[in-house]
Amino acid sequence: MNKNTLPAATEELKSFDDLIARFKAMTPKRRVVVVCPTDEPTRAVVEQCAADGSAEFLLTVEADKAAIAQELADRHPGVEVFVADDIDAAAVLGVRLIREGRGDVLMKGGINTDRLLRPVLNKEHGLLPPGQVLSHITLTKVPAYPKMLLFTDAAVIPAPDANQLRAMLKYTIDTEHALGNPCPRVALIHFTEKVNPKFEYTLSYAEIIKEAEEGKFGECVVGGPMDVKTACDLHSAEIKGIDSPVAGKADVLIFPILTAANTFYKTVSFFCDAPMAGVLCGTTAPVVIPSRADHDISKLYSLALACLL
Amino acid sequence: MNKNTLPAATEELKSFDDLIARFKAMTPKRRVVVVCPTDEPTRAVVEQCAADGSAEFLLTVEADKAAIAQELADRHPGVEVFVADDIDAAAVLGVRLIREGRGDVLMKGGINTDRLLRPVLNKEHGLLPPGQVLSHITLTKVPAYPKMLLFTDAAVIPAPDANQLRAMLKYTIDTEHALGNPCPRVALIHFTEKVNPKFEYTLSYAEIIKEAEEGKFGECVVGGPMDVKTACDLHSAEIKGIDSPVAGKADVLIFPILTAANTFYKTVSFFCDAPMAGVLCGTTAPVVIPSRADHDISKLYSLALACLL
Repeated sequence: MNKNTLPAATEELKSFDDLIARFKAMTPKRRVVVVCPTDEPTRAVVEQCAADGSAEFLLTVEADKAAIAQELADRHPGVEVFVADDIDAAAVLGVRLIREGRGDVLMKGGINTDRLLRPVLNKEHGLLPPGQVLSHITLTKVPAYPKMLLFTDAAVIPAPDANQLRAMLKYTIDTEHALGNPCPRVALIHFTEKVNPKFEYTLSYAEIIKEAEEGKFGECVVGGPMDVKTACDLHSAEIKGIDSPVAGKADVLIFPILTAANTFYKTVSFFCDAPMAGVLCGTTAPVVIPSRADHDISKLYSLALACLL
Repeated sequence: MNKNTLPAATEELKSFDDLIARFKAMTPKRRVVVVCPTDEPTRAVVEQCAADGSAEFLLTVEADKAAIAQELADRHPGVEVFVADDIDAAAVLGVRLIREGRGDVLMKGGINTDRLLRPVLNKEHGLLPPGQVLSHITLTKVPAYPKMLLFTDAAVIPAPDANQLRAMLKYTIDTEHALGNPCPRVALIHFTEKVNPKFEYTLSYAEIIKEAEEGKFGECVVGGPMDVKTACDLHSAEIKGIDSPVAGKADVLIFPILTAANTFYKTVSFFCDAPMAGVLCGTTAPVVIPSRADHDISKLYSLALACLL
C-alpha cells in the first residue's frame, strides 16, 4: 500500500518471528510517525525498533510531554521529535507528516483512537481518499493451525455491504501478496455452506467468487460460504464432503459482520493465547491502532506488518 | 425442562467427566428416543450407554434397517425397538413416543436434521408449544478457561429479536441451575462495551439486564454488552477498567447473532480442540441433533446434557 513499494517477498510467511526478521532486514527503512509516544508500551516499541534500527521514527507529541519523546531522540539517531500544542494538534501534525511524504506509516501512542482518527478521516486534510473504503485487517498465528491467518474486519465496518466486502477482499489479498503468498486461499465466512437470500452477504459472496475467478482481485482462490472450521480443518471439510481448494487450507477469513470477526479475534487471542497484528487499510498509508487489551508484543507485530505492506 | 424433574445438583459442574459421572448416576434413568440409530457413531453411543445403564432407549427405525436396531435390543434389556415404514415415519413415531410420555429425550441418529425437525415442529403433533421459542444451547470446556461455558445460539435463530434473546437467556439460566450453578454469570456479547442504537440488540441488552435485576429470570447476574475476551479474561477486563461481576468470570455467553455464535463454536472446537454438547431448547423435551463434523464424543456429551436438563 505504500507508494515506495518493495519487491514482494518470495517466501510465504510462517510465523511472527519471520515477520520480525523481515521487518528488521528492510531497506530502505520505513519512516514511522508515532502520535504521542508517551505511554510506556509505545515508548518500549519505539525504543526497541530504534535501537536495532528496524525503522526510523518521527514522534509528534504534546508540548507538556515533549521531554518523554526528546529523551528517546537524544539516545537514537533515527528518531526525530515534533512538538505540538496539545494531543489533538499532535495528531493533526502526525497526519500532515504522512501527507507531506515524510512518513510511511502512522502509529497511535498514548492518544484515544477516536481522537487520532479525526484528523486521519478529515475530508480535506486526512489520509482517506474520497470513495475509498476504510477497513481493518488482523494477522494471527494460532498454534493449532500450521498457517498464519489474515482476517477482516474486526474493528471498523459493522455490517459490510457488497462493495465493502470487495474492498476487504482486495486489502487482504494485496497484503498476502506483499507477505510473499503468491496465491492466497480466501474463505468467505458464514455459518453453513448454503447461499441463502435471507443473508444478503451470501449473495454477494457468489458474485465476488465469480469476479475473483475472472481475475478482478489478482492471483487468489476464493471460496464460500463456509464456516470457520470448514475453512481451517481439512478433516471437517472432508466429512462434510466439501470440495473446495479453500476448505481446510484458508490463508484469509472474510467475516460478514464485525461481531463475528471480533468474536474470532477475542476467542483466539484469549483462549489460544494467539498474538495479533492489526492495521487499518484504505488510507494512503497504513495506520496502526493497537488495542489496550492486546498483548504488548502485538504492538510490535502490528508495526512490523504495517511497515511490510 | 423435563417434567419429571430431578433435584438440582448441588455442586457446580467442572468438566465433561463430571457431566458423564452425573449422567451415569441418574435415578430414575432417562428414557431416550433415538430416531434411526443406524449410523455407526449413534449405534456406538447407544451401545455404550445401554451397556453401562446410563439411560434406557427406545429406538425408532425404518423397516429395512430394523435388524441393526434389533441387534442392540437383543443384547441389552434397557433397549426397545419400534419399527416404522420408512425414515420419515420413524421420525414421526419418535415424536409420538415423546408426546405419549414414553420418552424423556429425543435424539437424532442416521437421519437428516431437516427431516427429523419436520415432525418435531409440526404444529398439531409436534413438540414445540405455540408461542414457544425454539433455540439451541451448547456447553463446552476450553482448556484455557477454568469454567465450563454455556453459549447460545449457534444453530437455530439467525438474528434473535428481544423476545428471542429473553428466551435464550431463560434456557441458559435454567440449564445452569439444573447443572448446579446457583447464580450463573451471563455475558451479553457485542464487540464493545457501549450500548449503541445502531445495534438494536444492545438496546435489548439494557432492558434485559434490568429485568434480570428484578428477578425475572431467577437467580443470575447478567452483564453487557461486552466482548468475548472481556467476558472471560479478568486481566483484560481490568485493563479496560470494566467493573462488572460478569467480566472475566462468565458462565454463559449470549451471542446477538448466529454467525458470531457459530464462529465461537467452530473456533474453540477446532483451534482449542474443545468438545461440545448441544441441545435444542423450547421443545417439551430436549432434542439432541449432533453435527457430523463434531467429535464422536460430543454425541455422548450432548445426550448426557439433554438427560440432565
